[in-house]
Amino acid sequence: MSKPIVGIIMGSDSDLPVMEKAAEVLREMGVAYEMDISSAHRLPDKTAEYAKGARGKGLEVIIAGAGMAAHLAGVIASHTTIPVIGVPLKSALNGLDALYSTVQMPAGIPVATVAIDGAKNAAYLACSILSIKYPEIAGKLEAYREKTRQALMEKSEELKRQKV
Amino acid sequence: MSKPIVGIIMGSDSDLPVMEKAAEVLREMGVAYEMDISSAHRLPDKTAEYAKGARGKGLEVIIAGAGMAAHLAGVIASHTTIPVIGVPLKSALNGLDALYSTVQMPAGIPVATVAIDGAKNAAYLACSILSIKYPEIAGKLEAYREKTRQALMEKSEELKRQKV
Amino acid sequence: MSKPIVGIIMGSDSDLPVMEKAAEVLREMGVAYEMDISSAHRLPDKTAEYAKGARGKGLEVIIAGAGMAAHLAGVIASHTTIPVIGVPLKSALNGLDALYSTVQMPAGIPVATVAIDGAKNAAYLACSILSIKYPEIAGKLEAYREKTRQALMEKSEELKRQKV
Amino acid sequence: MSKPIVGIIMGSDSDLPVMEKAAEVLREMGVAYEMDISSAHRLPDKTAEYAKGARGKGLEVIIAGAGMAAHLAGVIASHTTIPVIGVPLKSALNGLDALYSTVQMPAGIPVATVAIDGAKNAAYLACSILSIKYPEIAGKLEAYREKTRQALMEKSEELKRQKV
Amino acid sequence: MSKPIVGIIMGSDSDLPVMEKAAEVLREMGVAYEMDISSAHRLPDKTAEYAKGARGKGLEVIIAGAGMAAHLAGVIASHTTIPVIGVPLKSALNGLDALYSTVQMPAGIPVATVAIDGAKNAAYLACSILSIKYPEIAGKLEAYREKTRQALMEKSEELKRQKV
Amino acid sequence: MSKPIVGIIMGSDSDLPVMEKAAEVLREMGVAYEMDISSAHRLPDKTAEYAKGARGKGLEVIIAGAGMAAHLAGVIASHTTIPVIGVPLKSALNGLDALYSTVQMPAGIPVATVAIDGAKNAAYLACSILSIKYPEIAGKLEAYREKTRQALMEKSEELKRQKV
Amino acid sequence: MSKPIVGIIMGSDSDLPVMEKAAEVLREMGVAYEMDISSAHRLPDKTAEYAKGARGKGLEVIIAGAGMAAHLAGVIASHTTIPVIGVPLKSALNGLDALYSTVQMPAGIPVATVAIDGAKNAAYLACSILSIKYPEIAGKLEAYREKTRQALMEKSEELKRQKV
Amino acid sequence: MSKPIVGIIMGSDSDLPVMEKAAEVLREMGVAYEMDISSAHRLPDKTAEYAKGARGKGLEVIIAGAGMAAHLAGVIASHTTIPVIGVPLKSALNGLDALYSTVQMPAGIPVATVAIDGAKNAAYLACSILSIKYPEIAGKLEAYREKTRQALMEKSEELKRQKV
Repeated sequence: MSKPIVGIIMGSDSDLPVMEKAAEVLREMGVAYEMDISSAHRLPDKTAEYAKGARGKGLEVIIAGAGMAAHLAGVIASHTTIPVIGVPLKSALNGLDALYSTVQMPAGIPVATVAIDGAKNAAYLACSILSIKYPEIAGKLEAYREKTRQALMEKSEELKRQKV
Repeated sequence: MSKPIVGIIMGSDSDLPVMEKAAEVLREMGVAYEMDISSAHRLPDKTAEYAKGARGKGLEVIIAGAGMAAHLAGVIASHTTIPVIGVPLKSALNGLDALYSTVQMPAGIPVATVAIDGAKNAAYLACSILSIKYPEIAGKLEAYREKTRQALMEKSEELKRQKV
Repeated sequence: MSKPIVGIIMGSDSDLPVMEKAAEVLREMGVAYEMDISSAHRLPDKTAEYAKGARGKGLEVIIAGAGMAAHLAGVIASHTTIPVIGVPLKSALNGLDALYSTVQMPAGIPVATVAIDGAKNAAYLACSILSIKYPEIAGKLEAYREKTRQALMEKSEELKRQKV
Repeated sequence: MSKPIVGIIMGSDSDLPVMEKAAEVLREMGVAYEMDISSAHRLPDKTAEYAKGARGKGLEVIIAGAGMAAHLAGVIASHTTIPVIGVPLKSALNGLDALYSTVQMPAGIPVATVAIDGAKNAAYLACSILSIKYPEIAGKLEAYREKTRQALMEKSEELKRQKV
Repeated sequence: MSKPIVGIIMGSDSDLPVMEKAAEVLREMGVAYEMDISSAHRLPDKTAEYAKGARGKGLEVIIAGAGMAAHLAGVIASHTTIPVIGVPLKSALNGLDALYSTVQMPAGIPVATVAIDGAKNAAYLACSILSIKYPEIAGKLEAYREKTRQALMEKSEELKRQKV
Repeated sequence: MSKPIVGIIMGSDSDLPVMEKAAEVLREMGVAYEMDISSAHRLPDKTAEYAKGARGKGLEVIIAGAGMAAHLAGVIASHTTIPVIGVPLKSALNGLDALYSTVQMPAGIPVATVAIDGAKNAAYLACSILSIKYPEIAGKLEAYREKTRQALMEKSEELKRQKV
Repeated sequence: MSKPIVGIIMGSDSDLPVMEKAAEVLREMGVAYEMDISSAHRLPDKTAEYAKGARGKGLEVIIAGAGMAAHLAGVIASHTTIPVIGVPLKSALNGLDALYSTVQMPAGIPVATVAIDGAKNAAYLACSILSIKYPEIAGKLEAYREKTRQALMEKSEELKRQKV
Repeated sequence: MSKPIVGIIMGSDSDLPVMEKAAEVLREMGVAYEMDISSAHRLPDKTAEYAKGARGKGLEVIIAGAGMAAHLAGVIASHTTIPVIGVPLKSALNGLDALYSTVQMPAGIPVATVAIDGAKNAAYLACSILSIKYPEIAGKLEAYREKTRQALMEKSEELKRQKV
């Protein structure tokens, strides 16, 4: 694998089952990534350093997943100007606490927020972002969408056959 | 102004007071944009065509603002693979209806959601995205952040003086 | 079965277990229907075409079920003027995201929204609507209500006997 | 005006400012209606009689608006099989109490719910329903939508001119 | 058992597992009750008649339990002036829909609302109400509270012993 | 005025504008009451003594209004077995904090909760409760309801005339 | 164990599985505590006495856990001026009822609220508070944090190895 | 003024009108404090340094107020082991976003959260905390509570006189 251009960060190893879906999508799309655990609250200095060094070492997008008072994406965004995608993880309050903590950022420090537990979409969004620079990723996204359309069309046909 | 690379779309002209803050930020950052009204529900065909033609005509990011059952960003995202940023607008339910309608997208069709009425941050997020391709935008973002820091440091100093 | 006058559309085959309850009710009421999978986000063009062609091919009501940022009913309603019934499906946030995304439509493009996971009621509502044109459906609805009343009266009697 | 085919009912005269928007739309669409005050809680017998007699006297749709524990639409629906459209009115809790009380109906007794304070859409939904029986109403709905599209297209053009 | 002075009504036999806890409490307190199924929506006429005849036949309190758009207690309260206690039952939205539908009654037609699934407390509240007329019930309530205090004091002692 | 049988308690004099509506209703219904300020948190001992002495001094119902973490009604209910009616007052979170703090009482210590800011209904509920012991109050409640019905019927007639 | 300086109180023995996590943390940190059951509603007098006597007998912090209309922490805080930490326990409404009942205290009687079911954090917060007086506790907190950091760093290393 | 032992930090000068109420209380209680503006997102490094140096320079409690995705208190708590009190500020979503972002902290890094806009209570809580070390503050808290009680008792007397 070539040098990673996407960093996937999560607040705890218990977040791995959800967050590795982002990694899967990136592998399928052929996008090099790195994955790490860091915590806005338990490892604040590591988190700050990671974010500060991100652009310099070649990262172009960071995906950050956290639950409850989910500060991880916001803290990373405060230390870098590359796009940061936040994945609110469901652990309490149906994930509303994590959603509000991730999306309601103050002016100047945005976090691109996706659905609760939406790690897959975080990866697709990362690909959309990268696609403005890497035309081959745009092509792969189009191919993926076409494949999705085909699959859904087949399910549609199957449903119609069943109901005859 | 050079050819627009960001499209700002809103569902109604009544959304303009909020959405033009996105335009202001883009002007300050020197990013060429275009602005239009289109509606997922009242102009669905125009909206679809706009989204389908976006990448082809040079757009690299679309910012879409809508309220209530805010489908605009999602509908646009379903027709293009360039990054789509959704701004949930407050008009009922404190904007929660627009937030949920914008952020809870299904896998494969992400919308990069920002805060309720967060048009400014939509523009800063657009700049972050563009910065991975255009180094000068990265520089401008850094400069903007530095300016913000200075301004806040001055307010901090002022507060301390007042309290003496 | 004669030519369908109700179309039941769902965003994914995973919605079938809930949505086929609508089909069951329609079969019991003797209303011809068709059932298909289409997605506001994954198959936007098919969805638009389906809605645009609905009245022309004889459909008189469309029932659309979707979860999360549930745009399906709204997108269909934007392309047709026959009545569209939306069923918000529960998958996250207890179904609140789907409810708000379905019911909070802007003026001019209404969606007749029923309860979360209320596929049965979507079918009964379709029958009410059809009953203004087809008197035999009005009769069947009355008969169904009478049957329900009888069943509940029997349960009432049974409860009273048990408690003696 | 000819014999009314739509009944607009509200729980209190204080609901009139919102509910008369439904009447306006019906007038514009040339649909004969009647308007009355009745309350699920203060005039339960009148409400029941009204609903029971509705189909017999020629009504084809009832629009019911109520706030707080908004039982009006549900109570009417329990006494008739013509379609009942519920408008949750905002008075407390941002209208959430009225929304939940209106939309979460049990199986067999549906209420076609529209947005909070969505009286206009209640009328457009009534027209959609009537359009399956009265082709001229279908035509008027199409004309209304076309007019809306034109109006929005003009606003779109105006916005583009302003920004030059 | 003597003539019932409390009526326990529920909208469906599926509510019995929760609502029979009210009956249990009343039995323990020696209060004669009757229990029945009736539905605001499926048996509106029976419900109205039941409420209208309640005071006449000797009932002094009605306890009504219902879920979703829980209109049962409100509909009963609209037809009688004896106190009506509403138990919001949890079936969707964590019971919030039933809570709002039960508690947010308009001026003049109150429902004494207890906690979600709070059938036991509905019975204790009925006893409090009856205690203003029947001094022996006041005595039994005091005895019950004293028993509860003793039980909790013993648990307190047990916990302290364990921790030594 | 004769000896009070209803006590109206509020947590602060700022609650008076809402809570005096309960007093008004009681005066109209000819029910003797007393009114006082006490606070679960600022005057806990006074509050406990008040509740403990309530039945002894002839009170038969207590109405308690409080906002935010509204513990007043619950604390009073913990010290007496006469019925306690809680009025959740709106001051933050649209009154949801006060509603949940008032209604979600544990088994054994019920609070009869009315709508947010529902002081009037608290008084009507007190009258319903008293009506099981004092037949003249039952008569007054019936008269009040009849007056309400007449008033609403007149408004209904007026609306119909206007619309001719 | 020396004389307790922290009191852990819960409303019911069913709260023990969550609340004993607070005790565990205090044991690890070497802080002497006592644990008891008391209830704002079922044992109001015991609760008041406990709170009133707390400072006198040497307690320096009280941790109170309760669910639903969680008045325990607030009632304790109304009777003492030592810091009171409230743990909202999840039993209904995802714990929102307990959270609002605990945190929304009126001016003058604060409760230091931690996360829903956050008994561990209640104990760590107690240690932070004690650390301003007992330097050795500050040291233990630093050591605990360092241990946490090490553990997370190791998990981070492990994740990176796995992914190679 | 002597050396500050409480630090009051807010994310923006627009938070001053609410947060200076904390300062007022501290002045009344004779507790030396300092006040500063810092932002978790706009001045992350300053914020981290402030928190890291807090205990060393003599601070014993930090009060942090922020709105929206309110990370300020949590970020400070991640860098210090002295007690951190969080004040969720209302700016959107009625302050729920700030409340959840402040209170739902992960195990090990607690924030002592007070009511939305509860700056006064943050200061009283700070005093409670300090009172375990400084007996004179305990005395002042008792005096303040006594004064509050007197004031409320007088209002109670006044209300009773008015009503005669």
